[in-house]
Amino acid sequence: MKHPIPDHNPMRGQYAPAPASPRHFALSIAGGVATVTLNRPDRKNPLTFDSYAELRDWFHGLQRATDVKAVVLTGAGGNFCSGGDVHEIIGPLTKMTMPELLAFTRMTGALVSAMRACPQPIVAAIDGVCAGAGAMMALASDLRLGTARASTAFLFTRVGLAGADMGACALLPRLIGQGRASELLFTGRAMKADEGLAWGFFNALHEPEALHGAALQLASSLAEGPTFAHGMTKTMLHQEWAMTLDQAIEAEAQAQAICMQTQDFRRAYEAFAAKQRPVFEGD
Amino acid sequence: MKHPIPDHNPMRGQYAPAPASPRHFALSIAGGVATVTLNRPDRKNPLTFDSYAELRDWFHGLQRATDVKAVVLTGAGGNFCSGGDVHEIIGPLTKMTMPELLAFTRMTGALVSAMRACPQPIVAAIDGVCAGAGAMMALASDLRLGTARASTAFLFTRVGLAGADMGACALLPRLIGQGRASELLFTGRAMKADEGLAWGFFNALHEPEALHGAALQLASSLAEGPTFAHGMTKTMLHQEWAMTLDQAIEAEAQAQAICMQTQDFRRAYEAFAAKQRPVFEGD
Amino acid sequence: MKHPIPDHNPMRGQYAPAPASPRHFALSIAGGVATVTLNRPDRKNPLTFDSYAELRDWFHGLQRATDVKAVVLTGAGGNFCSGGDVHEIIGPLTKMTMPELLAFTRMTGALVSAMRACPQPIVAAIDGVCAGAGAMMALASDLRLGTARASTAFLFTRVGLAGADMGACALLPRLIGQGRASELLFTGRAMKADEGLAWGFFNALHEPEALHGAALQLASSLAEGPTFAHGMTKTMLHQEWAMTLDQAIEAEAQAQAICMQTQDFRRAYEAFAAKQRPVFEGD
Repeated sequence: MKHPIPDHNPMRGQYAPAPASPRHFALSIAGGVATVTLNRPDRKNPLTFDSYAELRDWFHGLQRATDVKAVVLTGAGGNFCSGGDVHEIIGPLTKMTMPELLAFTRMTGALVSAMRACPQPIVAAIDGVCAGAGAMMALASDLRLGTARASTAFLFTRVGLAGADMGACALLPRLIGQGRASELLFTGRAMKADEGLAWGFFNALHEPEALHGAALQLASSLAEGPTFAHGMTKTMLHQEWAMTLDQAIEAEAQAQAICMQTQDFRRAYEAFAAKQRPVFEGD
Repeated sequence: MKHPIPDHNPMRGQYAPAPASPRHFALSIAGGVATVTLNRPDRKNPLTFDSYAELRDWFHGLQRATDVKAVVLTGAGGNFCSGGDVHEIIGPLTKMTMPELLAFTRMTGALVSAMRACPQPIVAAIDGVCAGAGAMMALASDLRLGTARASTAFLFTRVGLAGADMGACALLPRLIGQGRASELLFTGRAMKADEGLAWGFFNALHEPEALHGAALQLASSLAEGPTFAHGMTKTMLHQEWAMTLDQAIEAEAQAQAICMQTQDFRRAYEAFAAKQRPVFEGD
Repeated sequence: MKHPIPDHNPMRGQYAPAPASPRHFALSIAGGVATVTLNRPDRKNPLTFDSYAELRDWFHGLQRATDVKAVVLTGAGGNFCSGGDVHEIIGPLTKMTMPELLAFTRMTGALVSAMRACPQPIVAAIDGVCAGAGAMMALASDLRLGTARASTAFLFTRVGLAGADMGACALLPRLIGQGRASELLFTGRAMKADEGLAWGFFNALHEPEALHGAALQLASSLAEGPTFAHGMTKTMLHQEWAMTLDQAIEAEAQAQAICMQTQDFRRAYEAFAAKQRPVFEGD
């Protein structure tokens, strides 16, 4: 089955938007799965102005990428991410003008938007510290695997800020409920891993040494497709955020009718009829 | 207390819209409770084009029914519903034009809309397989009772489609949270009964032999009223889906003021004053 | 650090709107924490027309209060609140005109609105009976601490009314999920304390004798600030209720940029750099 859209198609060209070797995080792509690793393990993988921007651009570029079908987002050295670096980010912020501050908060928000806008499912693999903007990157992912020692804190309040950061007040209540989200955002206290599992933040917990494998396996399974349909699932989970239920039902009638004209739908039916496992191709 | 609206009142006439003996599911009505049974047990009660349409029309007709106060929705033979039949639905869909596909997805969505729009609370009694469109009918019900062997799968992705089907991306996150819903919709994996209970999908689990009795008891209790108020509760849970909280507060001020002019409100007060149990009459 | 807004500033003057000694509930203010105690323990602290109005006005006044940084809401004598008094409220309601009824339901809704609109976090300390409008006051609080014997019932249906009261159909699903909320609102059954904890209604349970201390400690901790940021967290949790996620991200970019120009943000950074604990001042 030849892919109907040529590689040079301007609507969905070859992946290009980020450098093959990003400077501020590690990237490997294999079998359709891109693994993004925050990798300053000596400082528990903090974010900096540069890494925010590069991550934003990289996730934004995924909208046109044809070689990435799913993403694993993780951190090096037993921690996920310690959030915005105190010296490299918070210090400078205390000296900025309002337009500069808004440019910064919009940049961090744009990272979340880019993670929600790309069609690829993002699996966060979370060990150890997961704090501040790091917790928000976990929250902005589609699925979250953790370890028993994962400690997740929306600790903006600890630096004198609001819990309203990068969409936290919208996202967190949708995952764990308004009451628990209020506690975490007002107090900044760490959510323990077993709380996160019981509350629906984590989809599953694994042993630290098994975490990356589990995340890769889950992402690989999603990368096998049906990727066009997965992208539509992600789009609709986002689109229906503030629709009425009747609007959502009509929106899904349209979205699913589109999916019913894909070849992957036909492939699944034919495989079923032949008592075989379907092989999806993404069109 | 005579019912103030005569039986021929065109706004809420005698129940009529569905055949007394529907052709594609079993129906019994007793004590104000209609029991709808999906009944092709040899195939685990799949849905067909005809049964979708008949169910949609039957639930739509409930808006004017005066003899049905609550509904039990269940399946015959130890399973709830296996979803859209592969041979009778999926095969034909792979050959349809876009207008035909949209007509189909709108029909399935209209079934969910009709289940949400009728004033009667719907109690789903779910044993065994609960899959695809069957899982959506369970989700579109107001209350869900299950068994330990109930297995619920939003398996649209398995046939190459999106998780966006019949309102799933709007409904499922509201019941079990955005993170768990994402996992079920992206992977199509079955939710086990104990997960469904812990996550808020099921209201309770029962032994298989006790399931129908428990559902009937719950529905009968709701059928005892106050049915006008129950209808308003259902309407407002639906209406407020995408309102701001302040809009919802005003909407409820109006809705509850209406309920305060019902006779059932007066009956409850007088029964309380007389230390008796109120007998509601639905007006 | 002198407070930059003089005490007579008309935008945020000295606390004044409620009488220092309210007539229909007990009030004490210490260390920035106001403790509101519903105190008719012989009747399990019911609400009356007068106490609704006084509570509404008092919470409304908190928007301008400078001496209250957090609130503890509780009941006297081992119960939280039994809701609207049957004799003092429900009886009269059965005799009112529609405009009078709407004035009443709008007053009760305005109490919830005032609790959500004030910038101070509200910690409800809930022991024993928590019913009807009492359950709604608990729900309208930001955080909820309970005891093992706390029994929470949205029992409007028991008096012939809808579960749609004071915003219940909007608030309750956001805390405990649509399925569980539907059960509680349709049936009026009591939610046990361990259910409330597992479902996210309660943030924690305490021994009855430790409840007030725990609530006071939590409120005191929040009163230490950063209070301006806490107020913004509360505002945004409310504002984003029905926004799309992208709207929420932009709204938080603006909200957090504002917080980044507070002195408390700078104080936190300087304390961190000096390896000290920040002392917030609310500006």
